[in-house]
Amino acid sequence: MTASGATSGLPDRVHVREVGPRDGFQNEPETIPTAVKVELVQRLVKAGVTRLELTSFVRADVIPQLADAAELLRAVELPDAVSVSVLIPNERGLDVALELRDRFDEVNVFLSASETHNRKNVNRSVADSLAGVERVIGRARAAGLRCQGTIATAFGCPYEGRVEPARVAEIARALQAAGCEEVAFGDTTGMANPAQVRSLFPRWAEALPGAELTAHFHNTRGQGLANVLAALDAGVSSFESSFGELGGCPVPVGATGNVASEDMVSMLHEMGVETGIDLDGLLDAARAAQAHLGRPLSSHVLTSGPIEWSTAHA
Amino acid sequence: MTASGATSGLPDRVHVREVGPRDGFQNEPETIPTAVKVELVQRLVKAGVTRLELTSFVRADVIPQLADAAELLRAVELPDAVSVSVLIPNERGLDVALELRDRFDEVNVFLSASETHNRKNVNRSVADSLAGVERVIGRARAAGLRCQGTIATAFGCPYEGRVEPARVAEIARALQAAGCEEVAFGDTTGMANPAQVRSLFPRWAEALPGAELTAHFHNTRGQGLANVLAALDAGVSSFESSFGELGGCPVPVGATGNVASEDMVSMLHEMGVETGIDLDGLLDAARAAQAHLGRPLSSHVLTSGPIEWSTAHA
Repeated sequence: MTASGATSGLPDRVHVREVGPRDGFQNEPETIPTAVKVELVQRLVKAGVTRLELTSFVRADVIPQLADAAELLRAVELPDAVSVSVLIPNERGLDVALELRDRFDEVNVFLSASETHNRKNVNRSVADSLAGVERVIGRARAAGLRCQGTIATAFGCPYEGRVEPARVAEIARALQAAGCEEVAFGDTTGMANPAQVRSLFPRWAEALPGAELTAHFHNTRGQGLANVLAALDAGVSSFESSFGELGGCPVPVGATGNVASEDMVSMLHEMGVETGIDLDGLLDAARAAQAHLGRPLSSHVLTSGPIEWSTAHA
Repeated sequence: MTASGATSGLPDRVHVREVGPRDGFQNEPETIPTAVKVELVQRLVKAGVTRLELTSFVRADVIPQLADAAELLRAVELPDAVSVSVLIPNERGLDVALELRDRFDEVNVFLSASETHNRKNVNRSVADSLAGVERVIGRARAAGLRCQGTIATAFGCPYEGRVEPARVAEIARALQAAGCEEVAFGDTTGMANPAQVRSLFPRWAEALPGAELTAHFHNTRGQGLANVLAALDAGVSSFESSFGELGGCPVPVGATGNVASEDMVSMLHEMGVETGIDLDGLLDAARAAQAHLGRPLSSHVLTSGPIEWSTAHA
């Protein structure tokens, strides 16, 4: 019953960036030992992940869960085919990261489209954040790194409500002008809906000729995969997700965060859209994370198992 | 940020049938007392539910959770605007139901498209089930009841894998010919994907001129709302769901069953598609069910709360 992407009007293949090792591990109450991180990352790569947000160079007193960023970068052995990304919050973070320049390929810089969210997140105005981000991009480009810019609350803000799409486009254009080859649009607290996604991505694509547009959805209200489908319809072919449904700053506590990689990959493959990722291998990584964390993770396919189209059970 | 259904290419309004009181209550390990059922149903109706699958006339020794079918039908006071449906497994069930003919409006009859699933479910061949269902429909129509036929495993069977869409259409045509005004297509174990949904509903609609086609999705692999979106795209404007994400025979244990009504209604309203249901009222009913059952229910919006577009938090 698996369709072909070509016959369904969907793309044949999309990019998937696995963000669990940064976004997921950062949000765990107990810091995951570096050796465990290495093992989980290697399972992800074995499953075929080729885009990986590995860690962030943030201050250890702010996010102790990622205090081992340099150690982790040194410890993981990844094939050349894997493009390793690190999240860079500021120039100081870039300074530390550049000491390990040969261990990663991309930087991800970020800011919010909403003033209130940006102030609560990094205690700065959007304009100040953008100026800092532009300096990071300039220096990262000079070091030969590929740059991705992420715009949080791009579909709505929990404090301000509506976020003006034209304002999001303006920030995105500034990121591209500064040197970002890729701009990611984050649905930070799960406020996006598919009609909105279908309406906004074409506008943003028009504003960003030549840029790669990436969709980063949360499943807070259960609409994560519906938004992925809507983004595919709107021409998006780059997605971010987190194995085991880890991370994504669940607010309120108990709410779902990031779209689960295994649920997204399962849907994409069932529709005939290739990802290059082996679903069983991805589930293996999620099960290993679950065993380490000692609590059931909430991705659906991890619980239900993948769809079996064979007649083996008959 | 809420869109208008009209401008998004989606319908302005859809029908939602709430199946929790039958499908959900039937799958609870502990039978819910009739008085609690009455209270929950009245909360649902207060929220604006106008299509309601209330119970089933099955043998009490087979499904003790619904042994109070007659008592429940007598006890609930529902406005005329609510179309009450009961699930009828066979002629004996219809005999009992007809003693309360003035207390409900519709019958729902069912069979599987897959031989193996049908045998495991009701210990009969599909042909034998269809013959029995046709007799029930004939007698129900004679009693002035509206008839809905539900085809389980319409998108895939956990035992047989692929289910031939032409075979599903054939069964659907037989149901319509026997007198069903509405045919529901059930994704019984969550094997449907959006590309398949977009491909199949137009074929089935062509085979069933004049019939109402209803989509009944499960969220087993997290694709429930993506399939709802795909069905909307394919012209479907009638859906079934269960408040609190109750029921839907979760297999394996722990897996998600039916699409949660509150998650579906939230997505529909955010897209500008009206349902006539008040989301807060629906959440109120789900919270009451959660309090009675004494365990957290897993619908997303129940955990996260509805989306707030106001600036009240700023």
